[in-house]
Amino acid sequence: MSTPGLMLYISPLSQPARAIILLAKSLDLQYTEEDINFLKGEHKSEEYLKIHPFGTVPAVRDEDLTIIESCTALRYIASKYDTSGKWYPSDLKARARVDEFLDWHHTTLRKHAVGYFLGVVGPKLHDSEADTAKINEHKEEMKKVDANIVRYFLNGRSFVAGDHMTIADLIAVCELEQPMCAYMTFSQPIMDYIERVKAQIGPDYEQVTEKIRSFTKSMMNK
Amino acid sequence: MSTPGLMLYISPLSQPARAIILLAKSLDLQYTEEDINFLKGEHKSEEYLKIHPFGTVPAVRDEDLTIIESCTALRYIASKYDTSGKWYPSDLKARARVDEFLDWHHTTLRKHAVGYFLGVVGPKLHDSEADTAKINEHKEEMKKVDANIVRYFLNGRSFVAGDHMTIADLIAVCELEQPMCAYMTFSQPIMDYIERVKAQIGPDYEQVTEKIRSFTKSMMNK
Repeated sequence: MSTPGLMLYISPLSQPARAIILLAKSLDLQYTEEDINFLKGEHKSEEYLKIHPFGTVPAVRDEDLTIIESCTALRYIASKYDTSGKWYPSDLKARARVDEFLDWHHTTLRKHAVGYFLGVVGPKLHDSEADTAKINEHKEEMKKVDANIVRYFLNGRSFVAGDHMTIADLIAVCELEQPMCAYMTFSQPIMDYIERVKAQIGPDYEQVTEKIRSFTKSMMNK
Repeated sequence: MSTPGLMLYISPLSQPARAIILLAKSLDLQYTEEDINFLKGEHKSEEYLKIHPFGTVPAVRDEDLTIIESCTALRYIASKYDTSGKWYPSDLKARARVDEFLDWHHTTLRKHAVGYFLGVVGPKLHDSEADTAKINEHKEEMKKVDANIVRYFLNGRSFVAGDHMTIADLIAVCELEQPMCAYMTFSQPIMDYIERVKAQIGPDYEQVTEKIRSFTKSMMNK
């Protein structure tokens, strides 16, 4: 689909940025991509702060609209450009299942996946001391997150919001991938779920994920 | 509006629960309300865990649909029952502004407003030592939250998602109210904003807020 006004300010190292790229690729959108290298501090550059005043990645621009929150961007892109209606269903009950996962994930899955990842990788990047107690805390919390996704969100279904893929699965799998790169393990149902999502996305998944894998590997081998 | 299947499991001590009650009252919905007293541990009762498996308040039931995330419930109730289309606009750009505030607030406004409130009130409730350093950390972060709401979300407009009230304002003001009960102060633009929202809601606001005010007052005087 031709969408000349669509600009994605992203980094392949950012989980929600990958979710947005995967949606744009799945919908076959013709977007412009700008890589914001936050390892080089580009997210705090004067230029980027004009787009995203809080200086986090990603941001999305669609003509005169700028969106600085990832789940909002996913909802917006799916609502505007997904003619199948699959990614963010308009049926209110089906949509509530998607929203529920997205709203839940901020202070659970994302909090502890990011906490663990930064706890492990940060000290290697900055040559500082790792806070093992804090890393273990996030690890323990991630066990509950794992169990809650299996028991409540999947609950015997194929995807976190029901029987087909939605934007909630893109967020879920991109968030799960990050600590996995840093050797976190998950239950078999979660591993099976990740494989299901990857199979549906196809080769784009590996392509979009390659950089976070190689970056984390280089850090873990330090 | 007659909505016999609508059940709200709430507590007036919970910020997002109050936001949901205020929406239901503003829409003049005929709902059934069940007060879950978490000071008595009712949120962990076998009965409530059947409705909300994670045991937090609120939860919303509409016929056979149960929603355990507050922002999801607000989006759902507004989409289904608000015939004015004001509370959660269907125009994608206007909707993105509402979603963006809601998505943003989880790890910013809510995190630090709750962190401060529990830091101050928790020790009084449990007769334990207050962690002053942590309380001050949340207080400092709330100054940034205040500034970011004024600068980015309000940005000279009357409400956080534009020129009229939406569900985002209900969340914003209920979250701001909680630390205010425990003597947190805000900038003049935030105080003016809170007054604008209260004026639009009318007497329901004071009625719904009375219990958290009196509870916190009794704690602060301990």
